[in-house]
Amino acid sequence: MDFKDVIDAMHSQEIDSLIIFKPENIAYLSGFKPSSSSILILKDDAVLFTSKMEIDNALNQSKVQVAELKSLNEVKKTLQGTVGIENSLSVFTYKKICNDFKTKLTDVVESSRIIKADYEVKCIENAIKIAENSLMNTEIFETENKIAAELEFNMKMEGSIKPAFDTIVASGVRSSLPHATVTLNKLEFPVVIDWGAVYNNYCSDTTRTIIKNEKQAELFEIVLEAQKKAIKVIKPGIKASYVDKVARKVIEDYGYGSNFIHSTGHGLGLEVHEKPLLSQSDKSKLQEGMVITVEPGIYIKDEFGVRIEDVVLIKKNAVRLNKIKTEITL
Amino acid sequence: MDFKDVIDAMHSQEIDSLIIFKPENIAYLSGFKPSSSSILILKDDAVLFTSKMEIDNALNQSKVQVAELKSLNEVKKTLQGTVGIENSLSVFTYKKICNDFKTKLTDVVESSRIIKADYEVKCIENAIKIAENSLMNTEIFETENKIAAELEFNMKMEGSIKPAFDTIVASGVRSSLPHATVTLNKLEFPVVIDWGAVYNNYCSDTTRTIIKNEKQAELFEIVLEAQKKAIKVIKPGIKASYVDKVARKVIEDYGYGSNFIHSTGHGLGLEVHEKPLLSQSDKSKLQEGMVITVEPGIYIKDEFGVRIEDVVLIKKNAVRLNKIKTEITL
Repeated sequence: MDFKDVIDAMHSQEIDSLIIFKPENIAYLSGFKPSSSSILILKDDAVLFTSKMEIDNALNQSKVQVAELKSLNEVKKTLQGTVGIENSLSVFTYKKICNDFKTKLTDVVESSRIIKADYEVKCIENAIKIAENSLMNTEIFETENKIAAELEFNMKMEGSIKPAFDTIVASGVRSSLPHATVTLNKLEFPVVIDWGAVYNNYCSDTTRTIIKNEKQAELFEIVLEAQKKAIKVIKPGIKASYVDKVARKVIEDYGYGSNFIHSTGHGLGLEVHEKPLLSQSDKSKLQEGMVITVEPGIYIKDEFGVRIEDVVLIKKNAVRLNKIKTEITL
Repeated sequence: MDFKDVIDAMHSQEIDSLIIFKPENIAYLSGFKPSSSSILILKDDAVLFTSKMEIDNALNQSKVQVAELKSLNEVKKTLQGTVGIENSLSVFTYKKICNDFKTKLTDVVESSRIIKADYEVKCIENAIKIAENSLMNTEIFETENKIAAELEFNMKMEGSIKPAFDTIVASGVRSSLPHATVTLNKLEFPVVIDWGAVYNNYCSDTTRTIIKNEKQAELFEIVLEAQKKAIKVIKPGIKASYVDKVARKVIEDYGYGSNFIHSTGHGLGLEVHEKPLLSQSDKSKLQEGMVITVEPGIYIKDEFGVRIEDVVLIKKNAVRLNKIKTEITL
């Protein structure tokens, strides 16, 4: 990735130096994702400060100049003019190196990350492919835990360094919890599987729900209809919130509005959750080159839940990047 | 865990309200580890604000009152007096809810976490047991990647929700990189395996190096001597930096001082890296009830590396919590 765009955005916001601490933002600009505290300072040039322990890795992978991170004071010396800081910068670092400078909160790097380059789309597609193959090769459907273990094993064997997030396998009544962690319990139905792989630091994120009876099938059809209608309206120029509205309307019309307790989707890339957010509050406009998930769900407390999640690339319309079928049977 | 100690520490620092954002600190005080942005406000009582999506999970697991996190403004309304903030709080949240208050950076929660209760030690021991059994049951020693995949599969099958950190399997020349990620390359020697499991949110962290020839064995013996001597001096009252000094001295005396490029160890608990740090700069005194790792290493660039890491509990002396042998052969 060429960071000229980010520097242009900095200048248009009258920022002279930008402090980048978030590992995903460092990965975006340098090609190297640090595993310990590292700081990238972007001015007209870029310098990545990283720990002694990681410096050889960084030198191998980084496209920008690398220096050893010896003290925050040394980093401070490289700052000049108005200093741009990320929302996620820690107060500790902020107080340590920014107190003599005029600062501005900015999301120039995250904003630049919203539109994916072809290379980035390829990485996401590869992550999806790994994740899908891995589910298709999963055989031990005995407990939530065993499914997750085998699925993650398969992803790792196919080259995903780690799962994109804690794999969710939520069965029976636990499927009514959108963020359930796995248990050792015997598998019941429905089974919600929400999983992702990582390829070159890029994530996939997909959900499938395996159903068994008519009540479950009924909700499945509603969620699927909501997802299809939402995907259909996606195109450059419409508001992110509108996609949420369309999905929510379907679910509301069937009387389950209060059971759809999260937003309809989110951007996907170096992080699992990126901008834009397909929610009521995000009024930003969709653009060509965005990669987003569409994941309506219905959760009935103490009974069960259904969620269906696919990844789409926005071109003239939404292009589904998932190849796996929506309906999975055992 | 009873948070009376934390409240006492707050009061002694003249803090009236404490904002806790770090998931591990929330887990420590409430018993519930959130997977999305959540905020715990500690005054004389405690309220955990969490997302609608997680609220059922939180209600099931949290020992403190739970409320839905609707807006930061609502959280702000609960603050009063001098507000304590964590080092890791984001500048965004800080500016959003703290600007009308006098604030103080504080690490009262992390400081309280340094001394482990019996329950916490049990959790760490269980995590270690899972990790060790899992390595012992690993069979496919073909590529770095396959070892890591099988090891993580085994840990998950034994109940570890996820690895405590990205498993390191670094073989041949890659063993000279302390934080190497796994590759698909055919396995060479030595093989450095640095891995950990999680049990009830508590982590294990152990490293073994599998060696094959005399040069490797020579370095292995030096690192082991450094580790043994360091463990031997550990007891309540001595400085964390002294343990580092003892380990470093052994390695320096053999002429490899410049090849020991990280600190000698660190606290272990809800996070893999906690206080204290066994490094030159940490002058804090060791105390009974701390759980720390001791992990000297020697890294020879473009050749290979050796690291040995064990976990000890500080009682009258250091009590090794690992049961696995130091020397592992295939």
